[in-house]
Amino acid sequence: MDTARVDVGLYAEVLQYYARQMQALDGGKLEVYADSFTADAVFGHTPGREPTRTRTAILSDLYELRKRLDADPQQRRHMFTMVDMEPQQDGKLRCTAYALVLTTRPGADPGMVRSCVVHDVLVREDGQLRNQERLIDYDGV
Amino acid sequence: MDTARVDVGLYAEVLQYYARQMQALDGGKLEVYADSFTADAVFGHTPGREPTRTRTAILSDLYELRKRLDADPQQRRHMFTMVDMEPQQDGKLRCTAYALVLTTRPGADPGMVRSCVVHDVLVREDGQLRNQERLIDYDGV
Amino acid sequence: MDTARVDVGLYAEVLQYYARQMQALDGGKLEVYADSFTADAVFGHTPGREPTRTRTAILSDLYELRKRLDADPQQRRHMFTMVDMEPQQDGKLRCTAYALVLTTRPGADPGMVRSCVVHDVLVREDGQLRNQERLIDYDGV
Repeated sequence: MDTARVDVGLYAEVLQYYARQMQALDGGKLEVYADSFTADAVFGHTPGREPTRTRTAILSDLYELRKRLDADPQQRRHMFTMVDMEPQQDGKLRCTAYALVLTTRPGADPGMVRSCVVHDVLVREDGQLRNQERLIDYDGV
Repeated sequence: MDTARVDVGLYAEVLQYYARQMQALDGGKLEVYADSFTADAVFGHTPGREPTRTRTAILSDLYELRKRLDADPQQRRHMFTMVDMEPQQDGKLRCTAYALVLTTRPGADPGMVRSCVVHDVLVREDGQLRNQERLIDYDGV
Repeated sequence: MDTARVDVGLYAEVLQYYARQMQALDGGKLEVYADSFTADAVFGHTPGREPTRTRTAILSDLYELRKRLDADPQQRRHMFTMVDMEPQQDGKLRCTAYALVLTTRPGADPGMVRSCVVHDVLVREDGQLRNQERLIDYDGV
């Protein structure tokens, strides 16, 4: 389990990237979240469904999700923990993290929606990290 | 979403600061927790109530909280995740993080007390980070 | 609360070490998890029971745990957060972290198994971090 050569700067950047990316999603900034994907990104977010391809289609999925959540008001939170990062030969970054999705409905205690594992491929575009791929494995499915 | 210029050393220091600060609170070291605030700190911790001002008043709030929890023994844990850090022009540090508050009563499974977003302003005093401001937004309120 | 002199590289390495170590355990790679302990490691994982000594005995405990979980299929996840690191004079590393253990049974929502505090002593062997000691305090016990 070779962790000795972790690129410290990159690791901190990835943690902060995830914080901003998921705070944008949970804060309803869907365009900001979609913009964290590359134009040709692949996002597999729902079990049993083909991954969504292109940023445009991802944004369209997000608008659909918003509609569903608007009908059942709640504050969702995506907590990423246990981030493992593996830089690839081609400069891409494979990251594997746990994601716990919480929800709080008005006046209620928080509840757990799902536990999953996020498999990401991050690339750098114009100096910024972006998701070229995000494939999510749900626990219990 | 510009994360490329994150100050790596500062980011790691903030993560460790939060770990120590909240382990102190959860471990009942209320004076250590209070001391992580500046003398003139502002701490808005309860919805619908004016923020508490000054470290002395914060400590007094903490003693009140202890009295309430003593009447209903439980181990609380504050888990901060998804820390986003924004250094300001004036040297202060704005940090936004998710906080999940858990509690475990004797012999029982853990439960979730609340999910919230912590908005901090950190400053450096005598080499140490301290909270000059902490404003907490509760989910579902 | 002196966090100013945190060794940034080491801190990031520890976070990544925990991510890989616990992803190995949760992924059923019991030999990989056991190998993250030193040959003479001490692992106190169960309240009221003597800590297990040696990597061989730890692996044997893990096989027993697998048998118990095989009889009640579920996906467990160990989320470490709030990692505090204290380098010791002798080069060892004391780390204290929160651990939240989640479980998801097929078709069910995730549930919380327990909240605990992990007390680790990490050492470096052949360039790699390993646990020489892990003592776990369960909340509510």
